[in-house]
Amino acid sequence: MQKIINTPKEFVNEMLDGILQAYPTQLKSVEGDTHALVRADAPVAKKVGITTGGGSGHLPLFLGYVGKGLLDGVAVGDVFQSPTAEQMLAVTKQVNSGAGVLYIYGNYGGDVMNFDFAAEMAAAEGIRVETILGADDVASAPKGEESRRRGIAGIFFLYKVAGAAAAAGKSLDEVVAVTRKAAAQTRTMGVALSPVTLPTVGHPTFEVKPGEMEIGMGIHGEPGIKKTKLESADQITEQLVSAIKDDLDLKSGDKVCVLVNSLGATPPEELYIMYRHAKKVLTGYGVNVARVHVGEFATSLEMAGASISIIRVDDELLSYINAPAHTPFFTQA
Amino acid sequence: MQKIINTPKEFVNEMLDGILQAYPTQLKSVEGDTHALVRADAPVAKKVGITTGGGSGHLPLFLGYVGKGLLDGVAVGDVFQSPTAEQMLAVTKQVNSGAGVLYIYGNYGGDVMNFDFAAEMAAAEGIRVETILGADDVASAPKGEESRRRGIAGIFFLYKVAGAAAAAGKSLDEVVAVTRKAAAQTRTMGVALSPVTLPTVGHPTFEVKPGEMEIGMGIHGEPGIKKTKLESADQITEQLVSAIKDDLDLKSGDKVCVLVNSLGATPPEELYIMYRHAKKVLTGYGVNVARVHVGEFATSLEMAGASISIIRVDDELLSYINAPAHTPFFTQA
Repeated sequence: MQKIINTPKEFVNEMLDGILQAYPTQLKSVEGDTHALVRADAPVAKKVGITTGGGSGHLPLFLGYVGKGLLDGVAVGDVFQSPTAEQMLAVTKQVNSGAGVLYIYGNYGGDVMNFDFAAEMAAAEGIRVETILGADDVASAPKGEESRRRGIAGIFFLYKVAGAAAAAGKSLDEVVAVTRKAAAQTRTMGVALSPVTLPTVGHPTFEVKPGEMEIGMGIHGEPGIKKTKLESADQITEQLVSAIKDDLDLKSGDKVCVLVNSLGATPPEELYIMYRHAKKVLTGYGVNVARVHVGEFATSLEMAGASISIIRVDDELLSYINAPAHTPFFTQA
Repeated sequence: MQKIINTPKEFVNEMLDGILQAYPTQLKSVEGDTHALVRADAPVAKKVGITTGGGSGHLPLFLGYVGKGLLDGVAVGDVFQSPTAEQMLAVTKQVNSGAGVLYIYGNYGGDVMNFDFAAEMAAAEGIRVETILGADDVASAPKGEESRRRGIAGIFFLYKVAGAAAAAGKSLDEVVAVTRKAAAQTRTMGVALSPVTLPTVGHPTFEVKPGEMEIGMGIHGEPGIKKTKLESADQITEQLVSAIKDDLDLKSGDKVCVLVNSLGATPPEELYIMYRHAKKVLTGYGVNVARVHVGEFATSLEMAGASISIIRVDDELLSYINAPAHTPFFTQA
C-alpha cells in the first residue's frame, strides 16, 4: 500500500485536522467535531444554507466545496462511509440563518437514510430543510429509472448553481427550483483504469486488470456496464459523450458546460486529450460548449480513470455556473 | 500502461490542442506552434514579460501558470524533454512589450542550453533578457553546491513573486532583484513512492518497489539520497522539513509559506496528513506559517509521492505571494 499515512484508523481524522489547520480563516468545526465542518463565517445572515455530506476519499468532494459562493457546511464520514445523522444535524443547525437549508448529496443508501433522519430532526427544531440528490451517473441505472442512479462528479454543477443562487439572495424555494433544474440537465459517464486501496483494508477491493478498463464503474468500485480492453482516448471519450447525449437528448443548438474529472491518478495531460475529442464530438452534434472545467472534482483516492459530466444550460444556469466562488479547493474569479 | 491516450507520439500535441480549446480567452499559440504558448493578451503594455519553459508531463508545470499575475509565456517540450531555443525565442518576442523579459525555469542541462541560446538570439534582436534558475531541490546537491541543484515544485514561489511584481509595474531590475531574493529563500524536499511510465516507453524507466520509498528522487526519476522501507507520514514529513530547516537555516521567529505538492497519484487526503505534521514540526522550531498551498503544483505524470517546499518570507515576498492571480490552472482571489 504505497500511501503516505500514519495509521489507517487516523487517516480521516488527521486529514481533517490538516485541512482545518491549513484554512483557519475559511473553515471551522462544529462543537469540536472535525467531521462537521462549516464556513468560518457561518451562519451567513439571511442566506439559504447549503450543506452536503458523504464519505471521505473523494477530495475535493465533499468538504472542498465549502466556502463563498458554494456550500455552507458538510458532514464528513470515514473513507467511503456515510457520516452520522447527528453530524449532519449539527452542521444544519450551524449554517441555518433562518432562511432554511438545502441538502445536496449523492444518491447512496447510507447517506439518504442518515440525512433524511437529520432533516427530520432539524424540522423538529423548526428548521426547514429541502433535499436534492445528485444522481447523474448514466451508467448506474437505465433511462426511466433515474431515481436509482448514483451521484458522481456532476454534483459539482448542482453545488455551483445552488451556491451562486443562495449567494445572490434567492429564497429557499427559488434555490430549490433552480437546483432541480440543474439536476435534471446534468449527466456523467466515467471509466476506471485501476482499482483503489482503502487504508483500512490494505489491498484493492475490486479488480481492473492492466490492459483493461471498465466503463461506468462507480467511485467506490461499484460495477460498471462494460469491461473491455483499454481503448484509445478518442474511443473512450466518444462512448462517454454519446451515452450522455442519448440520455440527455442533446440537440443541435443546445448549450452545455463540460467537466472532465480525474478519478485520482490519471494526470491532467490525459484529461485534456479527452476534452479535445469531447469538444469535437459535441461540435459534431451541433452542441456549443459555454464553459469547461478540467481537473480533480470527485475522486476515488488513487484510482486511475476519468469521467465526463455535461450540463445543458440556459442563461440562468450559465450565469450561476460562471459566478465567482472561493473555497479551499475551488476558486473562480 | 493504464493511460487514456491515443498514440504516444501525439500525446503532447493533443494535450496542447485540448488546453488551447479549453481556454481560448486565456491562452494563444505563437505563429501556429502550440508548443509556444502565451497569454491571450500578450504582450501586456509596459509590463516586464515573464516566461518559462520545460518538458511536458509535469502539469500544472509549466504552462499552467501562464496568466494574469503570473507568467506571460511558456515554451513546451515533449515529455520530460526541453523545448527548442527557437520556441523560447518566439515566446520571448511575443511577450516583450519593451520592458524586458525574465526567464524563470528549472535547472536542467537541456533547458539551460536552449534557453541561454534563446536569450542570446533575443538580445541580438534588441530584447533584454535576464534569467533566474529554479534550483530548490535540497536533495540534488549538497550545501555549497547550490548551483548544481535541480528545480522542482518550489519554482512556484519564484513564479508567484516575479509575476506579482511584474503585474505591479516593477522594472526588470526590480523584478529580478525580488525574484532572486525569493529563490535564495526557497527549498524543496520530495519523496517518491512509485515509478512513472512515459507514453513513448510504455514501461517504468526506474524502480520504486512496493513497500519502499526514495527520499529526494527527482521528478524525472533522478536518483535520490535514500532508498528505504516506506515510513509513516509523520516520519517522512519530519525528514523533509528538517532537511529544509537545516539547509535554509530556519530560526525561531522566521515566517514561511509552505507548499505541499503531489507528484501525481498521491491524493490530497495524504497531503493534508503531511501538512498537519509539517505545521507541528515548524511550530516546534518557532517558525510561523503565513500561508499554505496544498495540491498538484509540479507533478510527474502518475507518480505516487509528494514534496514539501518552504520559502522564508519578509513582508515584501509575502505580499507578492498573497497577490491575486488567474491562470487556467491556478486562481487566487
